[in-house]
Amino acid sequence: MYSTQVMDQVDTSFLAEAFSSSLSLPAALDPNFEDALRHVLENPGSLVRPKLVFQMATAYGLEARHAQELAVALEYFHTASLLFDDLPCMDNALERRGVPCTHLLFGEEGAILTALALINRAYALTWRAVAGCPHDRQAQAMSFIEGCLGVGGLLNGQSFDLHYSRLPRTLETTERIARGKTVSLIRLTLALPAMLGGASARELQQIERISVFWGLGYQIVDDLKDVLQSAAQTGKTAARDVELDRPNIAVVIGVRSAVQRLTRLIDLGDRVLGRILAMRPELEFLERLRNELQAELARVTRDSFVLAEERRP
Amino acid sequence: MYSTQVMDQVDTSFLAEAFSSSLSLPAALDPNFEDALRHVLENPGSLVRPKLVFQMATAYGLEARHAQELAVALEYFHTASLLFDDLPCMDNALERRGVPCTHLLFGEEGAILTALALINRAYALTWRAVAGCPHDRQAQAMSFIEGCLGVGGLLNGQSFDLHYSRLPRTLETTERIARGKTVSLIRLTLALPAMLGGASARELQQIERISVFWGLGYQIVDDLKDVLQSAAQTGKTAARDVELDRPNIAVVIGVRSAVQRLTRLIDLGDRVLGRILAMRPELEFLERLRNELQAELARVTRDSFVLAEERRP
Repeated sequence: MYSTQVMDQVDTSFLAEAFSSSLSLPAALDPNFEDALRHVLENPGSLVRPKLVFQMATAYGLEARHAQELAVALEYFHTASLLFDDLPCMDNALERRGVPCTHLLFGEEGAILTALALINRAYALTWRAVAGCPHDRQAQAMSFIEGCLGVGGLLNGQSFDLHYSRLPRTLETTERIARGKTVSLIRLTLALPAMLGGASARELQQIERISVFWGLGYQIVDDLKDVLQSAAQTGKTAARDVELDRPNIAVVIGVRSAVQRLTRLIDLGDRVLGRILAMRPELEFLERLRNELQAELARVTRDSFVLAEERRP
Repeated sequence: MYSTQVMDQVDTSFLAEAFSSSLSLPAALDPNFEDALRHVLENPGSLVRPKLVFQMATAYGLEARHAQELAVALEYFHTASLLFDDLPCMDNALERRGVPCTHLLFGEEGAILTALALINRAYALTWRAVAGCPHDRQAQAMSFIEGCLGVGGLLNGQSFDLHYSRLPRTLETTERIARGKTVSLIRLTLALPAMLGGASARELQQIERISVFWGLGYQIVDDLKDVLQSAAQTGKTAARDVELDRPNIAVVIGVRSAVQRLTRLIDLGDRVLGRILAMRPELEFLERLRNELQAELARVTRDSFVLAEERRP
């Protein structure tokens, strides 16, 4: 979702290795299943999300081993959600992470079983990371995970997304869907490591708020790119939202208003970020995430001007 | 898989209620998602599996609350696996638990999201049941769950099942697939509650062995029914294995040899059951599972004679 430019100061190459190797493949695997699993495990994407998880977790004092388990686990959940999203019955995508979608190479059943393998492994890794924390935080964390990934979070957002044609085309609707589909995973990324590391209720509240502002912000960037850019630039099948009748804020309120909304979300995020850093200065790496959102804003603003110029008579 | 005749002595009507109510639906659900979830939650099937989990768990001293959580969790995992199995890319089934398949009523995306909701909830319920147990058993239990449901268990069995056309048609192959696809869930059903309740290594070993014999046995019953019976009798789309080119032991070694193999598996199970009951007499309810397998053997034997008679010139 966000680009590789975030976090490039941190040497996190071990996370690419961890992504590929944290799901051990037994000897007697069905060859189609094995090939599908290898295809996914060998194409990890930008890994911005697990890098953030790792940084949050270590900033909150989790052991590196547990920080890594958590980082890989959340990236496996995320990757599984992409495998499902890309299926013909959902977004019918052709390409993901610069390579053909898993279902195109190994069948829908290969993509589904691979996604389920990632989910199964993600829960096992999460369990390990959680079990290493004080007992009183464990129940809170497991309940939080359930909320973000379940019927009240990601899954409901995905279902609304797919049945958008039945909904009113408003800013409110698109942001409600983005809260389920996009914000849920950003909440997990930022708040779960903090929760396990013993963040105060006030810290968690602010981290949850910034997850909403930035999550909605990155969704607007995605929507603007879908409208403005070609497939070559985004690295995935683009300009699809209109074709598929999916929620896209730049389609609903127009490019100019979407850019304004993004600017506003960055401002709102900045206020919250100030409060977070006052409480926990070691989270200053979050500024890079904020700066990347600002850089994305600059890029889409430039692209929207170019588009407007091109359309002039 | 096995019929409702097993366990009818036990009043387990609360498990039907628990199955339907253990996944709370939030107010703001996408209507298609909500309808799909209700369709699945309101058609719980025979519940033989959660009844067994509940009985095992209480026999091993788990609190009723945790026994129920575990029973519902394992049935949610099982139900999710059926939702995926029934998809067009897998078995392309029409009917399940006496009602139309979820994907036919609510789309493939509705079936997939519902299955994921069940899995998400199942892990949360499992976590609660596991967290109530002594710490030393928790890691063992989570690792066992991962093994049964993951790439080394259920998922690999399902993938082999779907790509059976590439495999040699032998008893060994069909039983290897059944170990993944069928035995994995029976191992979870019988061994996980025992593990959480502090069963000795020797008990667990015998419970694992009986899971293999009975799991393979019930798979043969299923295979024989697929060959012998009509859709009206089995309550699901029948006589499909040949059509779909799925492993079926009665097709591979013939009906007569399959019946012999089933008889042998019941005998092997009886020896293990004797050892288990010598160690833990309160597991005597397992005899009903054994007797039901014997009754299934009698039924398929009768049906195979009828079939042979009908085919006489």
